[in-house]
Amino acid sequence: MYSNDGFRELGRQDCLRLLAKVPVGRIVHTRQALPAVLPVTFCLDGDDAVVLCTSATSELVRAVDGTVVAFEADEVNAAAHSGWSVVVTGPATVVTDPVEHERLARDGPRSWVPSPRQVFVRIGPALVTGRELVGGRTLYGVDPTP
Amino acid sequence: MYSNDGFRELGRQDCLRLLAKVPVGRIVHTRQALPAVLPVTFCLDGDDAVVLCTSATSELVRAVDGTVVAFEADEVNAAAHSGWSVVVTGPATVVTDPVEHERLARDGPRSWVPSPRQVFVRIGPALVTGRELVGGRTLYGVDPTP
Repeated sequence: MYSNDGFRELGRQDCLRLLAKVPVGRIVHTRQALPAVLPVTFCLDGDDAVVLCTSATSELVRAVDGTVVAFEADEVNAAAHSGWSVVVTGPATVVTDPVEHERLARDGPRSWVPSPRQVFVRIGPALVTGRELVGGRTLYGVDPTP
Repeated sequence: MYSNDGFRELGRQDCLRLLAKVPVGRIVHTRQALPAVLPVTFCLDGDDAVVLCTSATSELVRAVDGTVVAFEADEVNAAAHSGWSVVVTGPATVVTDPVEHERLARDGPRSWVPSPRQVFVRIGPALVTGRELVGGRTLYGVDPTP
């Protein structure tokens, strides 16, 4: 969250309420020492943990398990110049407990693509930040030099 | 880009064509040693460099100038189970050349929020990758255990 840039900061509860509205976010991590980002389906678990589902053999799992990641979701209406963005930053861990896995297989998120061996990755919500566009005017396509 | 996960890899030209369709993407960087991500307006410059506009005094500028960042844009239709995601990875640099700045002030991207001192940040397209969802079935809301 960057301050003083024309956006309104959102509180934790507002962030979680907005996150619950959308089915897709983006997991931000490091891959081969470079910043990486990937859209994924997700759901909230226990109100504030982000859980996503992917193939057990995916590179994503190897890249994020045991590391701190950021998870971002947003809704932006460029024409209306409105929107919000929420970021959850915290440790990502593969769910290894069989009972927990079973519960998430029933009630948790679904992967984009079915896989015979799916795993769940939980992102602990160490830090939840969000911002909402509340002011300014849309400058799309408007030449500022008359 | 992760392979073998049900997505089709896109070539560089397809990636750039898709990027040119959308006005907003997300800049992925490191902030205070943590992964960070922020939606921003942008445009393509010279066909393949991503250029964004922000306040000269913003924390974003200080965080990304001179570093390697990832820039992601996507369009996802969760209901239709279709979409694409493109990532440009490369060095971010603030445009300091006055002639170049002037040109971008005329023809370049517009910031969400007007600022008396705006700067342009160029992301060199060292690596352009993309993926398109082409298969599988939507599993949203469908319980896989009958």
